[in-house]
Amino acid sequence: MYKREQTRPVKIGKLTIGNGNLVRVQSMTQTRTHDVAATVKQIHELEKVDCEIVRVTVPDMESAKAIKAIKKQIKIPLVADIHFQYLLAIEAAKQGVDKVRINPGNIGGIDRVKEVVKACRQKNIPIRIGVNMGSLEKDLYAKYGKYGVPRVMMESATRHVQILESLKFYNIVVSLKGDNSMIAREAYMLFAKRFNYPLHVGITEAGTLWAGSIKSAVGIGSILSSGIGDTIRVSIADDPKEQVKVGWEILKSLGLRQKGVEIIACPTCGRTEINLIGLAKKVEEIVSKVDAPIKVAVMGCVVNGPGEASFADIGVCGGKNQGAIFKKGKLIKTLKEEELLPVFIEEIKQVLIEKGYGGEVKKLKNA
Amino acid sequence: MYKREQTRPVKIGKLTIGNGNLVRVQSMTQTRTHDVAATVKQIHELEKVDCEIVRVTVPDMESAKAIKAIKKQIKIPLVADIHFQYLLAIEAAKQGVDKVRINPGNIGGIDRVKEVVKACRQKNIPIRIGVNMGSLEKDLYAKYGKYGVPRVMMESATRHVQILESLKFYNIVVSLKGDNSMIAREAYMLFAKRFNYPLHVGITEAGTLWAGSIKSAVGIGSILSSGIGDTIRVSIADDPKEQVKVGWEILKSLGLRQKGVEIIACPTCGRTEINLIGLAKKVEEIVSKVDAPIKVAVMGCVVNGPGEASFADIGVCGGKNQGAIFKKGKLIKTLKEEELLPVFIEEIKQVLIEKGYGGEVKKLKNA
Repeated sequence: MYKREQTRPVKIGKLTIGNGNLVRVQSMTQTRTHDVAATVKQIHELEKVDCEIVRVTVPDMESAKAIKAIKKQIKIPLVADIHFQYLLAIEAAKQGVDKVRINPGNIGGIDRVKEVVKACRQKNIPIRIGVNMGSLEKDLYAKYGKYGVPRVMMESATRHVQILESLKFYNIVVSLKGDNSMIAREAYMLFAKRFNYPLHVGITEAGTLWAGSIKSAVGIGSILSSGIGDTIRVSIADDPKEQVKVGWEILKSLGLRQKGVEIIACPTCGRTEINLIGLAKKVEEIVSKVDAPIKVAVMGCVVNGPGEASFADIGVCGGKNQGAIFKKGKLIKTLKEEELLPVFIEEIKQVLIEKGYGGEVKKLKNA
Repeated sequence: MYKREQTRPVKIGKLTIGNGNLVRVQSMTQTRTHDVAATVKQIHELEKVDCEIVRVTVPDMESAKAIKAIKKQIKIPLVADIHFQYLLAIEAAKQGVDKVRINPGNIGGIDRVKEVVKACRQKNIPIRIGVNMGSLEKDLYAKYGKYGVPRVMMESATRHVQILESLKFYNIVVSLKGDNSMIAREAYMLFAKRFNYPLHVGITEAGTLWAGSIKSAVGIGSILSSGIGDTIRVSIADDPKEQVKVGWEILKSLGLRQKGVEIIACPTCGRTEINLIGLAKKVEEIVSKVDAPIKVAVMGCVVNGPGEASFADIGVCGGKNQGAIFKKGKLIKTLKEEELLPVFIEEIKQVLIEKGYGGEVKKLKNA
């Protein structure tokens, strides 16, 4: 049913993206990169929320030269973000960066590109070409017009790719970002039809935390659900940890990654006889530290609840002053409302043990 | 580029969905429907956040008989949600409800369906068939197996549709919901290939506020971006006002609806010289009451900012202790950081006036 576009494998440090490998969540620091202590501190925070690849801006030589010191203190692959200045890319490669983001068409000619390619080839690191809807070549824009923006983005990416291919360099990742989800999706789809380089997916300038999270979920989600995407970055104007959390949630909601407990909860209606929202929030809090990928349902009525949440490993549903616990769609216990939560926690423990996550039991908070 | 599936028009009260009409945002009350005062109060709250269609559960005759009194006090179309009991559908129609949600295959035979159809035909109101991944016919499930769930959903919807079609009743809306976005999307796509009835799109049991919003955005967003959907409902376990807000944000992010100011903000990086997140939050607060659909950008650097946000009506970007204001991608003013916000507000006022939203100027909050 769901088919991911077949892309070629590309190594970024110890990770391989593309070729059906896991879709990876990445983010970017907001520190001055040459401030090694601050940058490492932020990367450590990102590692704690399971950021898997991290990018730093490299706007000057001081930042490029800081890469070795940063690399030594972090666990996840590091990417250098470079605009125009090819010498910074070469220095970043020398310093041991795991990937370079630079657009070969923008750095001042093929001789410079050759030098960058040589440095990346020596270190066996990939180059990400990053096309952005907001900075496209004027000639392409003139050719396809404002309704042809996805085509312009694809052609722009093609130009950059072909420069690298002319040097027999194929260790490439590509992004085609925009702040408009429909346009970005179309651009990614056009590119994926033509090339099999792994794709870095994102919606740029998504906005502030709440609106930006929704916009990113819509945009990145619709691209991923079309089978496209090997790594994602959520660009919301907030703490990068939030970007990582939203990224994971997008992947989880599509079943592309598993991480922690998934809570299924019905939206309640006038049939609901218990405080369902309160119960769902309590359950969410209780399992919030559990890393095992189990599905827990909190449903409002015994009639539809167990059936509609039959995909859940364990579930609870409310009735009149009472509730029931169900497992894989089958009712196993009926209880008074006040007994519901403690018994439910015991059942979650049981599920964790049965599924081989016994070590996670201690992470459950008692209600 | 983006093509919406061509569906037939269906009237729900004063609104028409399908046939390329606006995608409408709907929600559902959580009150006892027979408690008219509580139900009307919640619907009024929903109207304030631009809920466009509202559904109430009708689990008993008392609720069905409350519909006339509710209808009198509200402005938006009202839908009765009925499970199994055909007499409640008939009563709801008599009471003047604008749409009935009932699955004709589940109400105990064709004679009962005929009576429901007769009542709906007399009042010229549509029937929504609501198929849910959690409660599918066992024979279909056995036929297609667990990897064929989208097909099972489509076939299940088809059975219900054909019962109504056999009575020459075509005033139909259909939903094919599930808690799994990939499966739901596939089911909607299969159905849309076969029928042209307008589609009500939703992801069921999406979860609690944060995770559920992201899951709904991914699921509903990916279905809408495939061209499918005439009305949407976000099913998160929280205040239904939140469901409506998320619904609007999904539609806005795809450019399917306009409502209020869209803020484009870059995610900041080590190149950013100002407190961009703080500035973006301030701008968001200032324009939060404005209903005019303008695009406002808050960008971190003068180099890429104006270009990357050239689709914005007005934008601000930060530099070293200073900032600049740009309009449609062109720099118009450079200012000290402390002057930035008041001047920016003046420029937003100007944009509102130029675009014919002068009446909105008073809704701007002063910084």
